[in-house]
Amino acid sequence: MNGVRGVGEKEFVKEITSRAVDYSQWYVDVVTRAELMDYAPVKGCMVIRPYGYGIWERIQGALDPRFKATGHENAYFPLFIPESFLRREAEHFEGFVPEVAWVTRGGGEELAEPLAIRPTSEAMICHMFARWVQSWRDLPVLVNQWCNVVRWEKATRPFLRTTEFLWQEGHTCHATEEEAEAETRQMLGIYCDCLREDLALAVVPGRKTEREKFAGALRTYAVEALMSDGKALQAGTSHNLGQFFARVFNILFLDRDGRQKHVWQTSWGVSTRLIGALIMVHGDDRGLVLPPRIAPLHAVIVPISPQRRREEVLTAARRLHAGLAGMRVRLDDRDEHSPGWKFNEWEMRGVPVRIELGPRDLEASRAILVRRDSGEREEVPLDGVSRRLPELLAEIQHAMYRRAWDFTSRSTRLVRDWTEFRTVLEEQRGFVVGGWCGDEDCEGHIKTETGATIRCLPLEGVASPVSDALREAAGLPCVHCGGRAPGPVVFARAY
Amino acid sequence: MNGVRGVGEKEFVKEITSRAVDYSQWYVDVVTRAELMDYAPVKGCMVIRPYGYGIWERIQGALDPRFKATGHENAYFPLFIPESFLRREAEHFEGFVPEVAWVTRGGGEELAEPLAIRPTSEAMICHMFARWVQSWRDLPVLVNQWCNVVRWEKATRPFLRTTEFLWQEGHTCHATEEEAEAETRQMLGIYCDCLREDLALAVVPGRKTEREKFAGALRTYAVEALMSDGKALQAGTSHNLGQFFARVFNILFLDRDGRQKHVWQTSWGVSTRLIGALIMVHGDDRGLVLPPRIAPLHAVIVPISPQRRREEVLTAARRLHAGLAGMRVRLDDRDEHSPGWKFNEWEMRGVPVRIELGPRDLEASRAILVRRDSGEREEVPLDGVSRRLPELLAEIQHAMYRRAWDFTSRSTRLVRDWTEFRTVLEEQRGFVVGGWCGDEDCEGHIKTETGATIRCLPLEGVASPVSDALREAAGLPCVHCGGRAPGPVVFARAY
Repeated sequence: MNGVRGVGEKEFVKEITSRAVDYSQWYVDVVTRAELMDYAPVKGCMVIRPYGYGIWERIQGALDPRFKATGHENAYFPLFIPESFLRREAEHFEGFVPEVAWVTRGGGEELAEPLAIRPTSEAMICHMFARWVQSWRDLPVLVNQWCNVVRWEKATRPFLRTTEFLWQEGHTCHATEEEAEAETRQMLGIYCDCLREDLALAVVPGRKTEREKFAGALRTYAVEALMSDGKALQAGTSHNLGQFFARVFNILFLDRDGRQKHVWQTSWGVSTRLIGALIMVHGDDRGLVLPPRIAPLHAVIVPISPQRRREEVLTAARRLHAGLAGMRVRLDDRDEHSPGWKFNEWEMRGVPVRIELGPRDLEASRAILVRRDSGEREEVPLDGVSRRLPELLAEIQHAMYRRAWDFTSRSTRLVRDWTEFRTVLEEQRGFVVGGWCGDEDCEGHIKTETGATIRCLPLEGVASPVSDALREAAGLPCVHCGGRAPGPVVFARAY
Repeated sequence: MNGVRGVGEKEFVKEITSRAVDYSQWYVDVVTRAELMDYAPVKGCMVIRPYGYGIWERIQGALDPRFKATGHENAYFPLFIPESFLRREAEHFEGFVPEVAWVTRGGGEELAEPLAIRPTSEAMICHMFARWVQSWRDLPVLVNQWCNVVRWEKATRPFLRTTEFLWQEGHTCHATEEEAEAETRQMLGIYCDCLREDLALAVVPGRKTEREKFAGALRTYAVEALMSDGKALQAGTSHNLGQFFARVFNILFLDRDGRQKHVWQTSWGVSTRLIGALIMVHGDDRGLVLPPRIAPLHAVIVPISPQRRREEVLTAARRLHAGLAGMRVRLDDRDEHSPGWKFNEWEMRGVPVRIELGPRDLEASRAILVRRDSGEREEVPLDGVSRRLPELLAEIQHAMYRRAWDFTSRSTRLVRDWTEFRTVLEEQRGFVVGGWCGDEDCEGHIKTETGATIRCLPLEGVASPVSDALREAAGLPCVHCGGRAPGPVVFARAY
């Protein structure tokens, strides 16, 4: 940055802890200083402030049309689930009950039956499905809901783990196992595409182990992303529920062959946790870096002028702003802040492009465009900004994805044995690719001894940042016991 | 309807009770048969099914851009409000406490302090505003949230009054009383415009009396709509909160003059109740009638053919469908239902236009377009449907609004004294325009004796279906006591 223009930056940037000093504190500094959220006066709950919610609205805007294009419709199911419903599946939901918040009083009276605040809606939705599905003609049922859910968490962290969070949960019923599996994979594919294309996250799609799968699912698939501190984050899941819930909730249909059968189901979801992933994948020591497609603002125009030329520059800035009406551009014409303060402010908030306009720029009929992701500056003729900006945003989007991919690829290590495994996890973190014999005891020991879990059994034939490592790892033995391994898997410590 | 084409209609339509026989049952028949909602297994709660939620999405799509165009941003505040927060305003919120649902257990433990499920979010949002607002430069604060709220209701009715419902609540802070009043009126204007233009509701905007205003507001404004049974429904409210909450929650700002001042606030909201208004304003004995702008489907194509010409007609129907890709059109090519069944089904679900296509139509290269609102049919050349349909939808939208306006206007009666007032309410219902002395006792007696409330003190200078009656009523005395009345008001029994 130009020295004069950057006046005031130093005292500003130091408010954000550097990642090397304290990664957790850096994260908290970014989410609060960038006004993505604020702490609510209820333990573990947060307020999603407009700038953070703007990101969520854009994530919704990226996913919802994809859901609809594949035939899903939105609906809304109740917040409350009667205790008896959760008990019906107690065996499988015992993992959820300790996290449930209970309503016991309403309208001034004790309730005869406590109501759970939904931690997830399978119980309620399956109950309704049983009423709606009668015949093969009613299938498939393809619904989704955008809503809040509550899980009583002991340790919380903004966006990553909060007592209440926002998510979408898709729930579907199908006539056959094949259709349910195809749906499960289709939705995983939609998450993978959307997270890569719109959020610029270089996710690795794969299957979860039996130990890590959703309670009651036949198979769980997930997309896993690597954060800049080398820890993994599960960014979205898609479950093939088999007929488990259909049996518990009696979701039966009369098939073409005249026989009553249980439906086959799926469920799938992503949450506001994705905002945490965006911060930790793309952010740097200056703050947030947002991919253009989901950034609430594409660019900010900062006029720079001595007081005597203020009106002249502001007039030009307003004209430039008006010419960019199709994009999300803000003109920061506040006079209480210096240009340098504004540079830092908007860098910290991750706006992809800063447009500088000063008297000398005006004389040369140009503006300076500065990329948030790389810091690169370019001079653009004033009448060419509206053409150049969309190109530049596309370049940034692509570069951010490339960078996330390269980082993930570079941070993926192949390990051959237990010593190497432990060393890599201690010294470097990242994704660790190695063999696994398939035994749950080995999996358990690995977790206990290193804190690492199997993030996924990667999907074959889907290119990802770990593809090269997977190819090299073919045939390697189990990292823990040295026994024969059916194929390599991806380990990591995770959020 | 054509006799042959309407085969099967009779046994179908009789599933909906006629409005004249039992209006409440008609309403329940429509919401359930049209699959707008279903009853949830929790008292007073409902599931909003995809077709009903599709209407809500379109209402959101009509309102949200208007909020954003006037500078508001969406955010998300917690579901839970600590009991002590509600108690801080107990004096004014005593009306809400009996309706609150309480969370008393979470994470397997009794909570030290019960948490209310938000019945409305003033308490939480004002607490946060106090943290965020410091200086006049932070003003105005203009936020909105789309969320669920819970009010423990004794008697519930789908969409109109449910324990949990969806709504938006806007909350703003301003530096001066004038700005807050301007915002309150601006948002009332937005509701009025949107409900008229998009929902085709002929609403009457006005101010609430002291007795009917929001607890803690300086002034409450509302838009009132008249249902087809002659009862009124409050369709949206906008409150000037004055400095009441600012004082309770210490929302202070340093003004330009260097003095600490309390902010001036507003809040405003509409809910899924609007879906109830749509049903009761536009519906008829055949079921739902939806205004095109908020209808999930604009049109449905029903192919009509003997079996031997099935493919020929279907191919043409598919071509027609493909040519209407910019609109929300469904091709109903199900072979398990007769055309007559489909006619009734889609009429019942309120789809604005039915497009019929049979062999004779094909020979004449035409389709038949049938309006849901009026039943009118017109022949349109096949290659002209994509041009004619949008026109027709605009005509329907306009006609529905006109009809709602005329009905409301026709159902508005001027009354001069107490005898006339009681007679009109007993025999005709509708809006009753008459004088009111301004005394709360008179207002209370009117309610006790007739069940009617003052719906609003209509805004001057805003044209509405009651304008003519208001002009005629100028100078009339109080309908109850005969005393001097400052101006006419609008009475009605209400939902």
